[in-house]
Amino acid sequence: MEIKELGEFGLIDRIARSFTNNNPSTVLGIGDDAAVINAGDNHTLVTTDMLMEGINFDLTYIDMEHLGYKAAVTGISDILAMNGTPTQLLVSVALGKRFKVEDVDALYNGIRRACDKWHVDLVGGDTSASYTGLAITVTAMGLCKPGDEVKRSGANVTDIVCVTGDLGTAYMGLQLLEREKSVYYGKLADLNKKMKEAEAKGDKEKLQQFTRQRSELNDFQPDFAGREYLLQRELQPEAPSWILEKLREAGVKPTAMMDITDGLSSELHHICSQSHCGCRIYENKLPIDYQTAVMAEELNMNVSTCALNGGDDYEMLFTVPVGDYEKVKGIDGLHQVGYITKEELGMKLVTRDGNEFDLTAQGWKAE
Amino acid sequence: MEIKELGEFGLIDRIARSFTNNNPSTVLGIGDDAAVINAGDNHTLVTTDMLMEGINFDLTYIDMEHLGYKAAVTGISDILAMNGTPTQLLVSVALGKRFKVEDVDALYNGIRRACDKWHVDLVGGDTSASYTGLAITVTAMGLCKPGDEVKRSGANVTDIVCVTGDLGTAYMGLQLLEREKSVYYGKLADLNKKMKEAEAKGDKEKLQQFTRQRSELNDFQPDFAGREYLLQRELQPEAPSWILEKLREAGVKPTAMMDITDGLSSELHHICSQSHCGCRIYENKLPIDYQTAVMAEELNMNVSTCALNGGDDYEMLFTVPVGDYEKVKGIDGLHQVGYITKEELGMKLVTRDGNEFDLTAQGWKAE
Repeated sequence: MEIKELGEFGLIDRIARSFTNNNPSTVLGIGDDAAVINAGDNHTLVTTDMLMEGINFDLTYIDMEHLGYKAAVTGISDILAMNGTPTQLLVSVALGKRFKVEDVDALYNGIRRACDKWHVDLVGGDTSASYTGLAITVTAMGLCKPGDEVKRSGANVTDIVCVTGDLGTAYMGLQLLEREKSVYYGKLADLNKKMKEAEAKGDKEKLQQFTRQRSELNDFQPDFAGREYLLQRELQPEAPSWILEKLREAGVKPTAMMDITDGLSSELHHICSQSHCGCRIYENKLPIDYQTAVMAEELNMNVSTCALNGGDDYEMLFTVPVGDYEKVKGIDGLHQVGYITKEELGMKLVTRDGNEFDLTAQGWKAE
Repeated sequence: MEIKELGEFGLIDRIARSFTNNNPSTVLGIGDDAAVINAGDNHTLVTTDMLMEGINFDLTYIDMEHLGYKAAVTGISDILAMNGTPTQLLVSVALGKRFKVEDVDALYNGIRRACDKWHVDLVGGDTSASYTGLAITVTAMGLCKPGDEVKRSGANVTDIVCVTGDLGTAYMGLQLLEREKSVYYGKLADLNKKMKEAEAKGDKEKLQQFTRQRSELNDFQPDFAGREYLLQRELQPEAPSWILEKLREAGVKPTAMMDITDGLSSELHHICSQSHCGCRIYENKLPIDYQTAVMAEELNMNVSTCALNGGDDYEMLFTVPVGDYEKVKGIDGLHQVGYITKEELGMKLVTRDGNEFDLTAQGWKAE
């Protein structure tokens, strides 16, 4: 059977179904942001993410230091999404021949910046050669008091659906990077063509001119003016640990929580399917930054679709009981985007004009 | 700087030196078989290993099920090497397009067999597409009582150096697989050449004959008769958890311990450098299986070199105080191969004729 017939989530389900947990210390296994392990006084949280060059990142868009930072955030974010405190990281890297020691240094500089920011220790990892590109695996660990962990499966009918920050911004940052890359390659292809023509005609002067222009193209400066926020969100995401503090201060424990990395719509599918419920999300409540809206307009894209399905937001999605409304409504940077319904009502986006559309999920697909 | 100038261990040192541990729960960080995390009543152990296709395994030698089993053992073995009890695994896989769902099933069947054998739960992981081959990362977790963990750094002068099982066997298994592969490719090249000649001569009968022979070659059965143990050791290594039980029964706690995966010599370097000591290892005490000796003879290789530098043994190396000699000498499958010396005496192999040679370490090198 082809893997694409199952898709990512189907494949994970298939694997998960074929294993049972027997070890008494296993509190929670496959299927949430992190596994929960009973270590006695505390629960240990553990999660792992794999980042493959060409699939999960493209080194023409991101430098090694930002990549290291982002890889670390991927793990840290999963621990936070369990309502835990991130404590340790293990990072494994497989390196193709083209990488130098300086590249490795830059990667770990980024990891260190993230470790410093979230007070996390790098305690292990592995290194390997690689016949091809770069592969990175991040394992993140954290602690929480038994009972404090927030799973994906706890949402209840009438709960309020909340998200932090703004959505779709990192995705617009990626679009911007891709556009500038295609501008660069467009210019390159154009010059290559002109050089060939000049060569065919034996026009040495023109040939020299185009050769010089091509070498100048190496200094090509992409036009990012006024779009810095989009780039920052794509290259240096920030896991919103502040929301956990704010919620604790407010005396509110979310009923379900996960981080938004594959797009809000996809994450809502996880929460709703694991909590056996549906939801209504209001298009006019989606938090969208001004730069995101402008960029979507320029690219002729629907900004709501970007906010629902764009990846790499690293914001938090969670549900709180409707009775806690008063306690959370004043929290700065928290947005109520909808509510949880009975399962049979499905998962719907309520558009500005009052129509309802199915929310669709995405994961990677083998092509 | 080229990575090969540093080598694997140099690269790891460089990374480790650039990080400090600040989190109060970090008991032990980079540099041992596993990190140690204080979770209260228990210490949590965690370790991660990355296996890259073409570097760490070759799918022409190993099938997916054995690969899954071996990958799991890699992690389980590291937890045992800390004197811990393995409890959970997280496995991430990145899959190239050529892999089918059945391949993934087989991989996880192997992982499940290992999980069942060592009573370990699979609690998480990640899946990704891959532009090229297969990449697997295994994170293993375990528990031990605070103070029970055995590090690499605790060996003392006059301690006895012990190993379990036999050494160099898996390496001979790999040599056997490689030899049979080259026999196959030799026959293939020969037939291709004959077919070309027949075609050039227009000899249709011969061409048909060689074409048939080439298609029959697909059923090529490698000759493994009498060598099954070598293959088993390479394809299905067994982490020797029994030795931990035997040592506990005998009331002996090793002073230093690690698993043997890169070859005894390489592992002794880790223990000696981290314990600031030297060692004497006796060539005539190296535990070598009969099949290993025969195969080395056939291949005209020095069997002691195979036992010292061959990888994938998955046996245990540890040191015990000389005062515990009486307690351990009767343990079946335990071999005393030498003793720990002062650092300035270096790490030496004492040959059968009483000469001393430096023990040399190996890790992967970027080519």
